[in-house]
Amino acid sequence: MENEKGLLLVLSGPSGVGKGTVCSALRNRESNIVYSVSATTRAPRAGEVDGVNYFFKSREKFQQMIAQDQLLEWAEYVNNYYGTPREYVESQIEQGNDVILEIEVQGAMQVKEKFPHGVFIFLSPPSMEELKNRIVGRGTETDDSITNRMTVATEEIDMMEHYDYVVVNDEVELACDRIQAIVLAEHCKKERKIKQYRKLLKEVK
Amino acid sequence: MENEKGLLLVLSGPSGVGKGTVCSALRNRESNIVYSVSATTRAPRAGEVDGVNYFFKSREKFQQMIAQDQLLEWAEYVNNYYGTPREYVESQIEQGNDVILEIEVQGAMQVKEKFPHGVFIFLSPPSMEELKNRIVGRGTETDDSITNRMTVATEEIDMMEHYDYVVVNDEVELACDRIQAIVLAEHCKKERKIKQYRKLLKEVK
Repeated sequence: MENEKGLLLVLSGPSGVGKGTVCSALRNRESNIVYSVSATTRAPRAGEVDGVNYFFKSREKFQQMIAQDQLLEWAEYVNNYYGTPREYVESQIEQGNDVILEIEVQGAMQVKEKFPHGVFIFLSPPSMEELKNRIVGRGTETDDSITNRMTVATEEIDMMEHYDYVVVNDEVELACDRIQAIVLAEHCKKERKIKQYRKLLKEVK
Repeated sequence: MENEKGLLLVLSGPSGVGKGTVCSALRNRESNIVYSVSATTRAPRAGEVDGVNYFFKSREKFQQMIAQDQLLEWAEYVNNYYGTPREYVESQIEQGNDVILEIEVQGAMQVKEKFPHGVFIFLSPPSMEELKNRIVGRGTETDDSITNRMTVATEEIDMMEHYDYVVVNDEVELACDRIQAIVLAEHCKKERKIKQYRKLLKEVK
């Protein structure tokens, strides 16, 4: 169907949950998903290509991009800036391509402010069983340790609230299946389809 | 994950769109979807088994079911009642099974009143191209004919408004892929998952 806009997919979740691994596995699958390229001020490493691995920018240029609202989200780690250029993402979506951003939760919340209609996917730790085991441990944990784990788990779950979907990363391939199903289902959402049909009727008239 | 309730899936759409064919193809696939069994007052045909093809009921019994709100939807065609028994559907959902109802649009709207949280899937005619061709025809149509087709198309599209998803039935197998993706995606919805996580946290506490 022509003129259908692409989806903005945001894959996020607690650090260490396996966002990068899932995203890499997804890249190896047949799909039309486009992967967003981040901008950074850090120096290119051997073999890294500008516009492929990153858009490499000077500090001045990056700060200018921030000032001109050219980034969907950004953060500073260890004296280097990292961010998602808005232009690349928006042009891909306009062309009808689904774009995925794999980012930290703070970045995801920045994107949500700018793109509330994006599809926000929270990658969550392996399983409920695993979560319970991690909290309760093997019965050898101190009360303090259990309290601490409960706090972390509760914070993670409270973050879910801001997302549309929760994908459990029990197995990488299963997590990919779920993400692909979400993409396909989102394309079938009534709101998207009815717009296309109404447009067609107008054209015919 | 234990204690997760099943989904109520309602597959509907204009008559002749291929609901039955898509539903049969879906049955041949590996999935945990349970198919709702309708109740009817018509006589069993050769080979039809009570509780499998239909729940066969007398007129009196059927009217009693209507009066006691034991049907999610019902209608009368050619002097026979047809309907969806509520009890079977609800018990399957409670057991965690996804149940699919393949019904006419009028029935789907009745179900929506009783089960607003069901997943309503509108099966739509083959493709946008096909729809346009059907309306405009081969350039040999009268203005009246085109107006009539426009009215039908507009009515169909207005019906979509009440559904969650629109699945184009361009190819039966593709339509099945989309429905299965919707089922998987619905299970990943934040609202469902967060409830389970919060429940687990409460249990641990």
